[in-house]
Amino acid sequence: MLTGDQYRDSLRDGRKTYFDGRLITDMPNEPVIKDAVDNVAATYDRFYDPAPGTTNPMMTIPGDVDELRDRTLSMMDADIVMATTWQSLMTLLTASAKVAETGKDYVERIKVYVDDARRSDIRITECITDAKGDRGLAPGKQPDPDVYTHVVDRTRDGVVIRGAKLHITGASFGHDLMVMPTKNMKPGEEEFAIACAVPVNAPGVKIVNTTYAPRHPDSRHFPHTHGHHMPDGFVIFDDVFVPYERVFLDGETAYAAVFAHSLGLWERLGGLTAMADQADMLVGFAQLISEANGLSREAHIKEKISEMIIHATLVRAALDAAIANSEVTPEGSAFPNELYTNAGKYHGAAQYNLMVRHLHDIAGGAVLTTPTIADLENPDVGDLIRKYMKTTQDTDGEYRARLFHAIRDLTADSYGGWHAVTNIQSGGGLYAQRIVTRKHYDLDRAKQIALDAAGMGTGHRHM
Amino acid sequence: MLTGDQYRDSLRDGRKTYFDGRLITDMPNEPVIKDAVDNVAATYDRFYDPAPGTTNPMMTIPGDVDELRDRTLSMMDADIVMATTWQSLMTLLTASAKVAETGKDYVERIKVYVDDARRSDIRITECITDAKGDRGLAPGKQPDPDVYTHVVDRTRDGVVIRGAKLHITGASFGHDLMVMPTKNMKPGEEEFAIACAVPVNAPGVKIVNTTYAPRHPDSRHFPHTHGHHMPDGFVIFDDVFVPYERVFLDGETAYAAVFAHSLGLWERLGGLTAMADQADMLVGFAQLISEANGLSREAHIKEKISEMIIHATLVRAALDAAIANSEVTPEGSAFPNELYTNAGKYHGAAQYNLMVRHLHDIAGGAVLTTPTIADLENPDVGDLIRKYMKTTQDTDGEYRARLFHAIRDLTADSYGGWHAVTNIQSGGGLYAQRIVTRKHYDLDRAKQIALDAAGMGTGHRHM
Amino acid sequence: MLTGDQYRDSLRDGRKTYFDGRLITDMPNEPVIKDAVDNVAATYDRFYDPAPGTTNPMMTIPGDVDELRDRTLSMMDADIVMATTWQSLMTLLTASAKVAETGKDYVERIKVYVDDARRSDIRITECITDAKGDRGLAPGKQPDPDVYTHVVDRTRDGVVIRGAKLHITGASFGHDLMVMPTKNMKPGEEEFAIACAVPVNAPGVKIVNTTYAPRHPDSRHFPHTHGHHMPDGFVIFDDVFVPYERVFLDGETAYAAVFAHSLGLWERLGGLTAMADQADMLVGFAQLISEANGLSREAHIKEKISEMIIHATLVRAALDAAIANSEVTPEGSAFPNELYTNAGKYHGAAQYNLMVRHLHDIAGGAVLTTPTIADLENPDVGDLIRKYMKTTQDTDGEYRARLFHAIRDLTADSYGGWHAVTNIQSGGGLYAQRIVTRKHYDLDRAKQIALDAAGMGTGHRHM
Amino acid sequence: MLTGDQYRDSLRDGRKTYFDGRLITDMPNEPVIKDAVDNVAATYDRFYDPAPGTTNPMMTIPGDVDELRDRTLSMMDADIVMATTWQSLMTLLTASAKVAETGKDYVERIKVYVDDARRSDIRITECITDAKGDRGLAPGKQPDPDVYTHVVDRTRDGVVIRGAKLHITGASFGHDLMVMPTKNMKPGEEEFAIACAVPVNAPGVKIVNTTYAPRHPDSRHFPHTHGHHMPDGFVIFDDVFVPYERVFLDGETAYAAVFAHSLGLWERLGGLTAMADQADMLVGFAQLISEANGLSREAHIKEKISEMIIHATLVRAALDAAIANSEVTPEGSAFPNELYTNAGKYHGAAQYNLMVRHLHDIAGGAVLTTPTIADLENPDVGDLIRKYMKTTQDTDGEYRARLFHAIRDLTADSYGGWHAVTNIQSGGGLYAQRIVTRKHYDLDRAKQIALDAAGMGTGHRHM
Repeated sequence: MLTGDQYRDSLRDGRKTYFDGRLITDMPNEPVIKDAVDNVAATYDRFYDPAPGTTNPMMTIPGDVDELRDRTLSMMDADIVMATTWQSLMTLLTASAKVAETGKDYVERIKVYVDDARRSDIRITECITDAKGDRGLAPGKQPDPDVYTHVVDRTRDGVVIRGAKLHITGASFGHDLMVMPTKNMKPGEEEFAIACAVPVNAPGVKIVNTTYAPRHPDSRHFPHTHGHHMPDGFVIFDDVFVPYERVFLDGETAYAAVFAHSLGLWERLGGLTAMADQADMLVGFAQLISEANGLSREAHIKEKISEMIIHATLVRAALDAAIANSEVTPEGSAFPNELYTNAGKYHGAAQYNLMVRHLHDIAGGAVLTTPTIADLENPDVGDLIRKYMKTTQDTDGEYRARLFHAIRDLTADSYGGWHAVTNIQSGGGLYAQRIVTRKHYDLDRAKQIALDAAGMGTGHRHM
Repeated sequence: MLTGDQYRDSLRDGRKTYFDGRLITDMPNEPVIKDAVDNVAATYDRFYDPAPGTTNPMMTIPGDVDELRDRTLSMMDADIVMATTWQSLMTLLTASAKVAETGKDYVERIKVYVDDARRSDIRITECITDAKGDRGLAPGKQPDPDVYTHVVDRTRDGVVIRGAKLHITGASFGHDLMVMPTKNMKPGEEEFAIACAVPVNAPGVKIVNTTYAPRHPDSRHFPHTHGHHMPDGFVIFDDVFVPYERVFLDGETAYAAVFAHSLGLWERLGGLTAMADQADMLVGFAQLISEANGLSREAHIKEKISEMIIHATLVRAALDAAIANSEVTPEGSAFPNELYTNAGKYHGAAQYNLMVRHLHDIAGGAVLTTPTIADLENPDVGDLIRKYMKTTQDTDGEYRARLFHAIRDLTADSYGGWHAVTNIQSGGGLYAQRIVTRKHYDLDRAKQIALDAAGMGTGHRHM
Repeated sequence: MLTGDQYRDSLRDGRKTYFDGRLITDMPNEPVIKDAVDNVAATYDRFYDPAPGTTNPMMTIPGDVDELRDRTLSMMDADIVMATTWQSLMTLLTASAKVAETGKDYVERIKVYVDDARRSDIRITECITDAKGDRGLAPGKQPDPDVYTHVVDRTRDGVVIRGAKLHITGASFGHDLMVMPTKNMKPGEEEFAIACAVPVNAPGVKIVNTTYAPRHPDSRHFPHTHGHHMPDGFVIFDDVFVPYERVFLDGETAYAAVFAHSLGLWERLGGLTAMADQADMLVGFAQLISEANGLSREAHIKEKISEMIIHATLVRAALDAAIANSEVTPEGSAFPNELYTNAGKYHGAAQYNLMVRHLHDIAGGAVLTTPTIADLENPDVGDLIRKYMKTTQDTDGEYRARLFHAIRDLTADSYGGWHAVTNIQSGGGLYAQRIVTRKHYDLDRAKQIALDAAGMGTGHRHM
Repeated sequence: MLTGDQYRDSLRDGRKTYFDGRLITDMPNEPVIKDAVDNVAATYDRFYDPAPGTTNPMMTIPGDVDELRDRTLSMMDADIVMATTWQSLMTLLTASAKVAETGKDYVERIKVYVDDARRSDIRITECITDAKGDRGLAPGKQPDPDVYTHVVDRTRDGVVIRGAKLHITGASFGHDLMVMPTKNMKPGEEEFAIACAVPVNAPGVKIVNTTYAPRHPDSRHFPHTHGHHMPDGFVIFDDVFVPYERVFLDGETAYAAVFAHSLGLWERLGGLTAMADQADMLVGFAQLISEANGLSREAHIKEKISEMIIHATLVRAALDAAIANSEVTPEGSAFPNELYTNAGKYHGAAQYNLMVRHLHDIAGGAVLTTPTIADLENPDVGDLIRKYMKTTQDTDGEYRARLFHAIRDLTADSYGGWHAVTNIQSGGGLYAQRIVTRKHYDLDRAKQIALDAAGMGTGHRHM
């Protein structure tokens, strides 16, 4: 297992990662970037155990409902790269059963890879979304074939891939990039049916980072995000060699979507869990600020908070039902119920903006106009601000100011914007999420219920 | 146990029940009313077992999660008076534990009553909602004190009550009316803190029935409701004597709301279960009619059905989570989780009209304008109607016509109106349902999550 | 001009109209049907002027904004067949300008027809929606070509048409059926590009009526609809001869959609106007019942009514803007703004069910369970019902009961279901309404605003 | 009239304005602050006319519907301090008529002040919202009376005021602060009934600025806001002397709310106008990015854009109806219709987040993860980014990248958060906006419509 500092060292491996137009050469000491490194390092330190042969308990496979619930919920306390690492391993295991049908030795390669990953305590991020080029054309018909990641060359020992993967949260902060096809492929598109694990520092890999991290000189104005952000990566594979032992699919077009579907389930479970916590957090802020404003007993405020509570409870119920109805595979891994996972994820994403609207409506304009901590420290105006931010006798003006800062930071500033978009987009946009939910719903049963209610039961249908 | 015919006979007990302005003297043979009698009788026949000492399995108490799930779901196959009977018994048992604190012998009376009820295989309906008079005044301050049911006289053997209970589904079709206070009472309102079981045929009881039953001369135009309706009762207690052994609360104002709260849980669980089925049914109709219209592959149709599916799945998830997280009391009864039950019930009720809008949007105007079965039988126009109702090659015009009839009957005619209102009102209106959900939510935990996210954890709060 | 009685006589013209499976031979005396006849007759009597040469002022053409506003609003006071008559004439005039491009004498025929119609004071209904058969196939590709109304034969003097037109409100109660193609036609589909005026009593015309009219024996239980309903017609053209002077399009496929588009505008303007009134009515009922319930000062009740008010105001604003921004053609007819008309119509339809939900939520369960007027007359229970329906000192129990009857009749019974469906479907379903609104919106202007806001104004676009 | 540079000079008047904890001494040269100064200066330059006696046409009073429409729409092209100046003048004129009833010489003072303001071409911001302290207590009952701005001393020549006014957009960038009571006052609260014009540089005035301005080092990453932001002011009156000629209300509690109500109308009209443009802008971005993504023909994308169009059209219709139905006072000023103004403003605010959700759903994750312009300039990755950002043949990768930057800047970053909150809060929060709309709606007319529909017209009401 690695300590946080060993992790920091591991990032000095020659990787080509860019930020604000520059190549970053020392990630652990680069401003802004450094915060994210520290987050990942903290999880390493938290689980570090010097005893030989131990592995991170966060990287074990849940064998029943209780373990699945425990793993899922505890992932919320870890950094996001830890979570994607776990999701990557679970994805490989979920996909493994189906890929076995190809008759190739992918299953063995996956097993070796997963064992290695756990033993060497690395971090992995998942690379799905391709650049896609012209959405109206199949991968094999694009003017520029590189818009879908594909094999451009092949040696006795491995393949050479080219392409780009977008929106890869934490890509620069892990050790491996888990590359998988973005969607189903058809005969003739064999070169696009490629899944493999690529080291971040492999020659040809280039990552451009973007982040919602605050650039304000005073980090105190961003009480949550100043230390809790994680850049997204625009990952470019500029002719990258991958040895066969790290290739998990290579040309079997019929299996191209297996990885994406497997990942989808785990990604949406993670998203749903995060949303359940997030919803409770938004309820909490609404209640706290209504109390600090001295308005928590107003009928219309209570109504809005009650609506928020109902939303938070529904998202939580979907998560609970998804886990309570999980299935255990013959191999002994527990998987959440797909129908409940997807419906809950969709609902949470679609309603997030209403939750935020309610919070802003309850909180008031001071979400935006509360002076900074530096203003509070200014001798001319500090005490006056405190005086005028005070409401009821037992509410301190600075306490209230800090609550407003937190609400702005989390919901009405860069991070809030990031959240609004990712809630919708993670899992593929609301449209894709609707389709997936529909796929897992038992439409035939619903039709039978309807026919029975109509007195048109057995035998009455389409002549 | 009773057979269906014995049940029919049992209704000829001198009860005073009114319909369309007339006293009904022979319920099993009275048009319209007869349908509801037949429904209840059918459940009697279904469970009848001549073996001595047997009782209806629907009236047993669930002891664990699986029994609770089984009982809850199977209640959907029974008539509504069977369901209210079970809810009444569960309510008494739930309330019993708290009422024990009064030190009175209510617990024993309840036990005897419940055992008797199961043995004699009677049907019970629940009477909560009082007339309420001026909503701005407490029960004890009303110009007309009768607007809340109360004790107006008292003998050595029992009490005399006066008042009215509204919206009592099936009141005329059971044997006992389970009377309980509509809300909390205060000191000085002892006479209003009365809970008791009153036989429907007790002198002074008068019930006025209303119903959404179709009055159309041709029952085939209402394929679902023509045989599946249940009148609501406006129940008047015009100085009704109740012996003490049937009195379960008598003056202990602090416990007045215990029964209503207990009933609320079971009623909302029943409502939630019905909504879960109803939602699947609406999805089923949407899919069937989109197929019959030949439009099931249209993108916008699929989008709407997907939204309906997500709604149905969320309601089902809340029900599943409510039961999966049930608690078993020391006495061995399983109770559903209140938070999930209420949030799910609220959401289902609030969104029901959107489900119906989608169904109508998908189905089209023929929901309203499809000719009747009698028109289909008319030699001049029958075949022409069939010809013009036909769509794709494998869709018969009459099949499609019948689907439209069922959709209208269930969602766009009297029953649809009844459903729209009762979905909202059962459990006390959306406002009351929001309040109850809020009561069961852990606001302190939510506030702590928010403070942690704000970096204002322990020690930072209200000075 | 005709009197009401002359109108009644005019219906005894041998027309073949069916109801509940029977041919109706004497409409003015047929139960249920009679009500609708009386409604139309009442408008005749209201405008009757024995002076020779006068015509109904409701059938004149608006020449400016004020006249258009006046005509539109006053149409709400007339029966629905009067409204469709006006819409038919306006549709013909709107279409006339475009049909002139064919070079045929359609314009003259239309002029003669309109003048005749006004002079002979007839009533006209609009027949658009075809049976459509397989929605996936064009009119010319259907296994049964009759599913789109088409010319099946032709003589020197006219055409013979066959087909069916659905959802034709009031079809049996007018004198002429204004037949027009349901959509655009393509070369090869000339026989489907037929628009013409067909007398209701023309040989081969058969109309099957359906209605939401209450069938309850006591009409007092339906205070609004018992005398205010209008059946919809399923209109069959079973080889009907139409002389050329009544044919307004005959084979010019490029102009097939002109009539439907013209009608759409007027139909949606009518729908929008009705919705504006309807929304105010729902607000009115919500306020009245909240007062009668003694709850009009409750915060959550006021909130819901305020939301209803905002909705009603937006619908009214769209109507107001549609008329204020009307255009006057070179021929001197005023036409409402299409964008505002369509957006308002869509919004009103999409939100109608939320308005009703709020009303039901505010009103309570007595919408369904209020005893009938006959019950109020019963000596055993009448006074008790009045007593228990009473709330505040100044609210009479019977007054409150009647309010509930009206709310049920209008929103939670057959008519409410009819309204819910027709609000969505009139104008072609929400999907069609979205498309039409989009068509009239200036997307290029919106794009330019966006580019300017992005600092990407002129010259920056697509390479 | 002033030039931009003269305006810049005018800010060096000793005003005490703070930013990020520091007193700002040279606003025109202070980073971040400078941008806002430049915006205001640009409007000065745009309208500057050296001819003596001319005044800014933006500061004239509209006398009829057309002038009101012109002024309202043209204000969108000016900076926000120009807009608040106009609103301030209109507010004073609107309030003037009512304040005349006091019999004091306020009307003359207002007239002189307005004339002076126009002649000296100053800028004015509006100061309403007080700190408010304990929301449960009236101004006169607060432990700290300063939480509502009030008179603390009085000389022969004027008053001394103390308090704070919050959320004052542009406060530091105008010349005068128009102070007015935040709400109605009661007898005994005379000292709080104070309205007056205070120079920004009056001794005792202190303003703390906050802003959503981007702090990112590379302004190109914020194509819209980097030059288009305006700080909000937390305005403190720390015992500020105001001469009587600048006092417009002084102790007449019955008139305390007159200014706030007048301002409310103009502020909401401004808000509504901005929202109408904003809605069109969001539609424009949705269409542009759907085209750039090559997805503008997808059914679900078109559906979402159509919904956005309908929303934009409704907001525009409300604005149009508000102006078309404006009233002209006897003094010759045109005022918009309050009902339409408020309903439109409410709807736009309440639905803004749904518009943004649709835009984000349509655009995709690249809203967040598109590399910066600096990355595009980097020789290692610039061309690769362009390559992979390219979609269809006629869409340039950099053009698409810039669109994403603009969408993020405007909707998913600091400014987006500011917009989300201010849309809801300007005009007082959704609750206040509902109340105001309700106040202007004709409830009696709605009730009459309902009674008529119920057949309970004249004479049937309450007993």
